[in-house]
Amino acid sequence: MTDAPLFQRVTLIGLGLIGSSLARGIQQLGLAGELVATDASPEVRARAAEIKLADRIADDNASAVKASDLIISCVPVGRAGDVAQSIAPHLKPGAIISDVGSVKASVLAAMSEHLPDNVHFIPGHPVAGTENSGPDSGFAELFMNRWCILTPPDGADEAAVEKLSALWSALGANVEIMGVAHHDLVLAVTSHLPHLIAYTIVGTADELEDVTHSEVLKFSAGGFRDFTRIAASDPTMWRDVFLTNKDAVLEMLGAFQEDLSKLTRAIRRGDGETLFEHFTRTRAIRRGIVSIGQDEAAADFGRKHAALKKKDS
Amino acid sequence: MTDAPLFQRVTLIGLGLIGSSLARGIQQLGLAGELVATDASPEVRARAAEIKLADRIADDNASAVKASDLIISCVPVGRAGDVAQSIAPHLKPGAIISDVGSVKASVLAAMSEHLPDNVHFIPGHPVAGTENSGPDSGFAELFMNRWCILTPPDGADEAAVEKLSALWSALGANVEIMGVAHHDLVLAVTSHLPHLIAYTIVGTADELEDVTHSEVLKFSAGGFRDFTRIAASDPTMWRDVFLTNKDAVLEMLGAFQEDLSKLTRAIRRGDGETLFEHFTRTRAIRRGIVSIGQDEAAADFGRKHAALKKKDS
Repeated sequence: MTDAPLFQRVTLIGLGLIGSSLARGIQQLGLAGELVATDASPEVRARAAEIKLADRIADDNASAVKASDLIISCVPVGRAGDVAQSIAPHLKPGAIISDVGSVKASVLAAMSEHLPDNVHFIPGHPVAGTENSGPDSGFAELFMNRWCILTPPDGADEAAVEKLSALWSALGANVEIMGVAHHDLVLAVTSHLPHLIAYTIVGTADELEDVTHSEVLKFSAGGFRDFTRIAASDPTMWRDVFLTNKDAVLEMLGAFQEDLSKLTRAIRRGDGETLFEHFTRTRAIRRGIVSIGQDEAAADFGRKHAALKKKDS
Repeated sequence: MTDAPLFQRVTLIGLGLIGSSLARGIQQLGLAGELVATDASPEVRARAAEIKLADRIADDNASAVKASDLIISCVPVGRAGDVAQSIAPHLKPGAIISDVGSVKASVLAAMSEHLPDNVHFIPGHPVAGTENSGPDSGFAELFMNRWCILTPPDGADEAAVEKLSALWSALGANVEIMGVAHHDLVLAVTSHLPHLIAYTIVGTADELEDVTHSEVLKFSAGGFRDFTRIAASDPTMWRDVFLTNKDAVLEMLGAFQEDLSKLTRAIRRGDGETLFEHFTRTRAIRRGIVSIGQDEAAADFGRKHAALKKKDS
C-alpha cells in the first residue's frame, strides 16, 4: 500500500543548492503527487529538465504555481518580492506559500505586500547548506539533522504550519518556530557575521603586498583554508543577506569589534592571562556543538590524510 | 635488506599533537635507530610509555637528549628558550636541533642564546594540525601533503639542513626554506590572524544577551560551527603564538580592520555592487586552495549526512 503524498502538487521556484536539494528529497520520498519546478535562468531550467529535478519544469512562475498546494520560493532574498508579485494572481485559494531565505523580516514584508489573503504565507529557513550552488549541487540529505526555522505571522493557520512542518520533518530536519525579528538576530550571529568575517579575511589575504598569493594558498592549512570554504559561498545570495539584514548584522559587528579590541589590546600589552582565559572558554563551545550533533566529532572536520608509506629504496 | 635509519638516535621533547604525530611517523617508517621522547608532564610521560610512543621515555630533557643526533622541541613557543637552556650542556657535538613552533623569530632568538656553537640549530614549522592536543591526538599521517617550513640561520650547515629535510619529506611533507621574518609574516596571515578572528567571534557569540547559548549551538550550521573548530585549539600554544608574533599579527589585524571597515560601510550604505564584487573575488581563492591539494574538493569539507529514509507508516 502506498501512502498518500503529503501534498498533491508542490512547486519550487529557484533551483540552486536549496531548491534542487528540496526537489531531490521530495522526489525521493514521494512527498508530492506532482512536483513542478522553475527557475529564472533558461540554462538552469534546461539542466533541471535534463537531470529530472521535477515531474515538470515550467517556463515561468505563473504557470509553475497553477493549482499548486505548496509553493516554496528558493531564490536569493532580494528577489522574494518579485516572486510574490509574479505568482500572486495565479495562486490556488488555500495554498501554502513559503520560502527558504536566510533573512525573514524583509522577506515577510516584501512577499506579504503582494500575496492575496486567501493563501497561507509561512516563511521558512532551513539552516543548512554548502559552499556550492546551482542545480547540480543539491542533494536529498542536506537537511538531515539540521534545523528548519519557520516564522509564521501572527494568526497564521495552524494546520498549514503543521503541514509545512511535516514536509521539513520528513526531509530529516528539526522544526523550530520563531518570530522574524528574533530569527534575524540569531542568524546574524550564527551565520551572517561568520560569513562577513570570512569574506573579509580571505579578501585581506589576497591583497597583501609582502605575502604572495601563492604563499597564502600553500600555507593555508594553518587555519586560513577553513575560512575560504565559507567565503566561496554564492555572491548574489550573500549580497542580498547583508543588504536585507543590515541592522542585525551591524549590531553583531559592533559586539565583535568590541571583543576584537579587547583581544588586540591583550596582545599589544603582552597580557597572556586574558588570552589564555578567552581561548579556554571558546574551546568548550566546540564541544557543545559536537555533543548536540551539529558537527562531526572527528578531528579537523574528518579531513582525510593519505597513508604514510616507506619510500622505495 | 633493511635500510639504515636516517638518524641513529632521535629525541622528541614535548608529546602533544605534533610531537606525538612525529613519534608515530618516525616509528612507523623506522626513521630512527632509537627514538627517545620526554614531556614536562608526568601524566603525559606515563601515557606515552603506556601507548609506546617511543623506544624510551626519559624523565627529563637532559637525559633525553644524551647522545642524540636529532632533537626536535615540540613545546609551546613560549617554552622554547627553557628547553634550549635545559638541553644545552648535554648535547652531542654535531647534533641537529630543531623545533616545530608556529613562530620562528622569537624561537630562533630564545634558543640560540643557549645552544652551543658545535651543534646545528635549524628551526622548523610543519604547517599542519588539528584542534586536538595531547599524546593521544597525534597520528602518523598528519604531515602528508602539508608544507614544512625550515628557517636555517645564515651560514647553517647544508648537510644538516638536507638531513632534516629528508626526515620531513619521508613523513610526507613538502619542505620550503624561508627566512624567519618572512615566515612570521606569512603565518600571521595564513594561521595566526584566522585563529584570532575565530577565537574572537566564538567568544562574541557566547556572550550575547539577546541570543541564548543554546540557540548559538543549535543554529551553528549556518557558518558559525566552522569557526568553533579553530577556536577549540590549544589555549597555551595559541597564547604563546600571539605573545611572540605580536608585531606581524598586529600588522595583519590592521589590514583586516581596513577591509572590514570597507565592507561594513558598503552594508551601511546598501552598496550591493561592492559586496558582490568582493564576494566573487574571494570565491576564486577557495578554488586555488583545492586545486593545489591543500583542502578537499568535497562540499562542506566532506561532512557526512545521514541517509534519507521514508518514515514507517
